[in-house]
Amino acid sequence: MNDIKTVDTIIHAQAIVTVNQANAILPLHSIIICAGKIRDILPTDDAQKQYQSSNTLDLSQHVLMPGLINAHGHAAMSLMRGFADDLPLMDWLNEHIWPAEAALVSSEFVYDGTELAIAEMIRSGTTCFSDMYFFPEAAAQCADKIGIRAQFTTPVFDFPSNWGTGPDDYLAKAQALIDQYKDNELIDIALGPHAPYTVSDEAMNAVKTMAETQGLAVHIHLHETTFEVETSKSDYGKRPIERLQALGLMNGNLQCVHMTTLNDDDIRIVADAGASIIHCPESNLKLASGMMPVQKCLDAGINVALGTDGAASNNGLNLFSEMRTAALLAKAVANDATAVDANTAIRMATINGAKALGLDKLTGSLEIGKAADFIAIDFSALDMQPIYHINSHIAYTHPADKVTHSWVNGKSLMSNRKLLGINEQDVIKRAQQWQKKLQQTQEQTV
Amino acid sequence: MNDIKTVDTIIHAQAIVTVNQANAILPLHSIIICAGKIRDILPTDDAQKQYQSSNTLDLSQHVLMPGLINAHGHAAMSLMRGFADDLPLMDWLNEHIWPAEAALVSSEFVYDGTELAIAEMIRSGTTCFSDMYFFPEAAAQCADKIGIRAQFTTPVFDFPSNWGTGPDDYLAKAQALIDQYKDNELIDIALGPHAPYTVSDEAMNAVKTMAETQGLAVHIHLHETTFEVETSKSDYGKRPIERLQALGLMNGNLQCVHMTTLNDDDIRIVADAGASIIHCPESNLKLASGMMPVQKCLDAGINVALGTDGAASNNGLNLFSEMRTAALLAKAVANDATAVDANTAIRMATINGAKALGLDKLTGSLEIGKAADFIAIDFSALDMQPIYHINSHIAYTHPADKVTHSWVNGKSLMSNRKLLGINEQDVIKRAQQWQKKLQQTQEQTV
Repeated sequence: MNDIKTVDTIIHAQAIVTVNQANAILPLHSIIICAGKIRDILPTDDAQKQYQSSNTLDLSQHVLMPGLINAHGHAAMSLMRGFADDLPLMDWLNEHIWPAEAALVSSEFVYDGTELAIAEMIRSGTTCFSDMYFFPEAAAQCADKIGIRAQFTTPVFDFPSNWGTGPDDYLAKAQALIDQYKDNELIDIALGPHAPYTVSDEAMNAVKTMAETQGLAVHIHLHETTFEVETSKSDYGKRPIERLQALGLMNGNLQCVHMTTLNDDDIRIVADAGASIIHCPESNLKLASGMMPVQKCLDAGINVALGTDGAASNNGLNLFSEMRTAALLAKAVANDATAVDANTAIRMATINGAKALGLDKLTGSLEIGKAADFIAIDFSALDMQPIYHINSHIAYTHPADKVTHSWVNGKSLMSNRKLLGINEQDVIKRAQQWQKKLQQTQEQTV
Repeated sequence: MNDIKTVDTIIHAQAIVTVNQANAILPLHSIIICAGKIRDILPTDDAQKQYQSSNTLDLSQHVLMPGLINAHGHAAMSLMRGFADDLPLMDWLNEHIWPAEAALVSSEFVYDGTELAIAEMIRSGTTCFSDMYFFPEAAAQCADKIGIRAQFTTPVFDFPSNWGTGPDDYLAKAQALIDQYKDNELIDIALGPHAPYTVSDEAMNAVKTMAETQGLAVHIHLHETTFEVETSKSDYGKRPIERLQALGLMNGNLQCVHMTTLNDDDIRIVADAGASIIHCPESNLKLASGMMPVQKCLDAGINVALGTDGAASNNGLNLFSEMRTAALLAKAVANDATAVDANTAIRMATINGAKALGLDKLTGSLEIGKAADFIAIDFSALDMQPIYHINSHIAYTHPADKVTHSWVNGKSLMSNRKLLGINEQDVIKRAQQWQKKLQQTQEQTV
């Protein structure tokens, strides 16, 4: 007799920003969650007639949207937030970051730094992140414990590091991780050849073979600086993009990170291959690496996603800030105020990120059947008034600190800004302990 | 016998960022306030021995710094936050902003919009702002009621507006305001010829005479777009900067706002004149106006301050965000990661703003004898950890929502994020009422 269906979770909202194909924004709608998936999205009036749940939330001042996807970062480097600023990329790496890493990076460092990073990301609206760093097994363990979605791209360099002896060892460790997480719903493993200037052709070939055989995504810092492009031309007689193409790595599974230095041929090669670009505007500006021509790449049909890069060069993991910077900067770079409008910026931070990571069937938009990965933003604050266009406020105001709730795969990770499953004070305490050790590696003053 | 002096207010802090000549950051120091002025800054141990007050605050997790100075904006336009986005400057003005203003702008509109803006500015760390908008008498009344420091630059255009009939009327109204506020400690009145393309030579001359006679600051949108520069060349045979120089307006009292389109001669003229530049990077990016060459102007010896511009093109009044964007963008524009370092960015947002407004003897740094205009930032949040360099966190993280307290002239305007003297819910309610009226002026959908 009773047609009312019982479900896991019901959330009534002021509006739902779906990021579906039509960028539909649905006022006074509700989202229905069952078994970690979106079972229904419908007007709240209808939801109240058709569904019931012991876990029903009335968020009438809130907008729901897909959780943000941070498609490039080095989570554990949050322990080096602001460690060295206002320096060019190679000085910053050679004189500060790499020596500190050599002195301290360990499994414990990575676990603690990753937990700090995940806590910050959840609090600023991210529900899925890509990570490339040493000891990815420690980072993956941390993400798995917390229940956030992530893709770990195991690093590969020619040289040894605290984590391994060289390319063969790195790839063997990658294989162990792939085997460990193959049935995990939230953790995905990919390969991370660090950059053209740190990975030889031989190691690139080994990456390519492993990626092809097992259908893995490949993530690489690419065309980050003019220096990198010039070095490649003198060392290999090719621009890095041409070199990756020649090596057979330029394809739909490739995630090209940074890409500030691009000519028309570069853009055509990437577009033809169906590779994705991960744009990290704040890191590119801060290190004076350059400005990615976003609108030109979008016009060429390339999927462009967003990443914060590590907090050592940002100095945070706030993807709403990155979205805003990307939208603002793209207009000036294109000399066109209509470039990268609010909807495009929102897509770059959500569904485009999912596409880049190969996870778009699962996440990146709020549509029936997809995983329930989403956030609630409180739109009642003074600096959000008045509200003419919800998408404009998401892209151009500063909503990160107004994210009140977060769900991944239907599980609540934050409620009313309180993190569930993370002890914030303990995370802060461990960060401060690492701070002291890092300060000892340099004569740094607070 | 008792050497302990009784004062109005004592605040003990984790550190004080003075922005004095040496950019000194003083750990475990206290600030002593008497009669609206900074009476002393000294180590907390000494402060406890030398001073007492019934109003003593222990902010041991907080950093104190000068309140930020927002050196260009249109406060009342906060009622048009996100009203029209992703449009070029002239379309945005001609098709959206100006028609809406013609339909609705009134004394009530300006009062309510200014109160919304001041509330947002205090909450994000600003203690002094410059404002150019219609009905400045209503805006000044609002600022005076709240107790924030401000400079109102009364607008002058060739054409009539809701506020007046033309240049003579605008300048007569400016004179009335000058007379009204001449003894006010917090409200300063200056002249605001809108832009080279809206003010004739005749009106410019009238502005010049009045400014010279009474020693007033002059504030103008200048070299905002290439279009403006080209129009001036064809209309006047001169670039706008050359025209202002010929008119005798280019001098140490001039505040040149935007300045995205500059050649070496332009920079030399401004530097030689001792005029200030007000840089509004976020508005310049969003309207695709261009990128101000900040480091080049600083190297030429020009005083560069920061402004948010109006919330209709930003879409907020967060000067910490503007500081961060300015620092990041300047590095990429200069192709030099050492350009506009953290200390320089902080100076641009504080003491340089005071210099631009002619108020640097009074405010913009924490030094004995200056007005007690300052803020407290809670540095205990997770996304501020670890803390290697306090100045780096101010410039490169997102501290706006961590500003907990604000004082102007020794008077508390915000305590633990609660505004004193502003009813937030009432401000929001009035903003929402104006929203409905503005929506009726266009066929806009939420």
